[in-house]
Amino acid sequence: MAVYTDIDDATLAEALEAYDLGRPVAFKGIAEGVENSNFMLETETGRFILTLFEKRVRREDLPFFMGMMGHLAHKGFPAPRPVAARDGEVIRTIAGRPAVICTFLNGMSPRRPDVAQCRILGAGLARFHAALSDFEGVRTNNLSLSAWPTLFAGRSGEADRLSKGLADHISSDLRALQDAWPADLPRGAIHADLFPDNAFFLGGELSGVIDFYFACTDFLAYDIAVCLNAWAFEPRGEYNITRGRALLAGYESLRPLTPAERIALPVLARGAALRFFLTRLVDWAETPADALVRPHNPMDYAERLGFHRQAEGPADYGLNIS
Amino acid sequence: MAVYTDIDDATLAEALEAYDLGRPVAFKGIAEGVENSNFMLETETGRFILTLFEKRVRREDLPFFMGMMGHLAHKGFPAPRPVAARDGEVIRTIAGRPAVICTFLNGMSPRRPDVAQCRILGAGLARFHAALSDFEGVRTNNLSLSAWPTLFAGRSGEADRLSKGLADHISSDLRALQDAWPADLPRGAIHADLFPDNAFFLGGELSGVIDFYFACTDFLAYDIAVCLNAWAFEPRGEYNITRGRALLAGYESLRPLTPAERIALPVLARGAALRFFLTRLVDWAETPADALVRPHNPMDYAERLGFHRQAEGPADYGLNIS
Repeated sequence: MAVYTDIDDATLAEALEAYDLGRPVAFKGIAEGVENSNFMLETETGRFILTLFEKRVRREDLPFFMGMMGHLAHKGFPAPRPVAARDGEVIRTIAGRPAVICTFLNGMSPRRPDVAQCRILGAGLARFHAALSDFEGVRTNNLSLSAWPTLFAGRSGEADRLSKGLADHISSDLRALQDAWPADLPRGAIHADLFPDNAFFLGGELSGVIDFYFACTDFLAYDIAVCLNAWAFEPRGEYNITRGRALLAGYESLRPLTPAERIALPVLARGAALRFFLTRLVDWAETPADALVRPHNPMDYAERLGFHRQAEGPADYGLNIS
Repeated sequence: MAVYTDIDDATLAEALEAYDLGRPVAFKGIAEGVENSNFMLETETGRFILTLFEKRVRREDLPFFMGMMGHLAHKGFPAPRPVAARDGEVIRTIAGRPAVICTFLNGMSPRRPDVAQCRILGAGLARFHAALSDFEGVRTNNLSLSAWPTLFAGRSGEADRLSKGLADHISSDLRALQDAWPADLPRGAIHADLFPDNAFFLGGELSGVIDFYFACTDFLAYDIAVCLNAWAFEPRGEYNITRGRALLAGYESLRPLTPAERIALPVLARGAALRFFLTRLVDWAETPADALVRPHNPMDYAERLGFHRQAEGPADYGLNIS
């Protein structure tokens, strides 16, 4: 939540000369996005978000992210639409960094989503997947099954410092997931990071989905599993089945899950929790105590893993096998 | 440049129930203001800045600041207009902190002001003073002459660490200013911190003046002296007389300085530079190396003091004694 690279008025004016957006009217750095610098930009023609990509996002991945956002916006899904410069390019260089300008989306992110929002989010995710069914871009999910052992390597001590005995639990999660991970399920472009702070609501509707920088090609149901972890847990790893059921019902109101997806849901949910636990563990261990941005505490996801380990089947998530 | 206190969607919705602004449409923390948390708020009725006051601003000073801003806006000067809640109160409590909602001003701050902007700023400052000529609020300038020895007490070592011999120079500045500070000049409400990042320009006009949290009652010409320091210096303490002359000419196009103000200008400029040097020295010395916000380097103002010490009269600033 910071502006890492500033853009002064002269740099902005020069950058905008490449676009057909008119002159700037207002420009402010905003506290949004953990990895990038984001600015609210208003010009004579509308309101936009200008993003500078800092080191974590690879430039070669940007065409996939921008293609996905453009595809969604073109289909009427409320994703930011990347704006092309006069030369047709969407990705440019501003202040020495890869940069894009996208349309601004209204709405507010829920701090603590309610049941109605979970249902709307579930239906929105199904619309998201449907809108992308003919999207041709492909990007490997480099934070999935094969990456997890590498992320955990050498971090047992850190895990046990967080909670005694946790390293053994994580090792058994890794083994269980290698054994049980589904070989094949319906696949496509997924968001893979659709947390409440990446969703905007306005007037009881989903008005925006942002932050596509973990998007990739993977099982559609894995996206649902990420959302269940992010939207349907209370503190200390307590699953709120009312919210989980609403999210799943919202999704299935547009695309009913296949029998294989239903059976796989618990293992996907456990895998999604492990993914966020592990990346948070790495950030936790590697961030100096005096860093500008404080990392998320990995324990939130260690506690969710506790729920997933004891889940006996899809019914425990509010999904009925009919 | 940060959001120190976050406001979630539920807290915002509850806070807005006290106002007649309609429902929120967009809400984002912005990287503006060093001392406070600022948010861009759009509602069904318009666009606003919501400010939470953190520890540096004293709650008892807020009525003066808000009164001044409201007075200016009422006179047609482009200052943010504080919005009263339905109960008539401008200052409320949101997220446990004193909070105000003001109108949003368009425009961009210049990183490196040009000559035209300096002239416009000078004229804008004269309009600012004129608009406040019937403002009745009073607030002592607690960062003026009598405060400076206290700010410097015990900091000789820190000054000499910045630049060998600097402490002696500062001591002689303090003595010279105690001797030469004017006893009486035209007084009124002044901004006292009108740096380029507190001024917005749009379409060749001054479209906004923000950040009133050092405003006070003092010599009007001291406000000009602050602006000369902030708008008309190059790096390494080199005075840009073209910009300084433009700023002064802009001011005098609306309010010619009195003979006493002209004569006092060099000592006021030296005092203004000392004020910013000293507060930056204190911040520099008191901010831990691992702090979230890095303080300004006091040397920028030590270098300006070097110019002021050798100035022989108002002509050195581009002001002619006619």
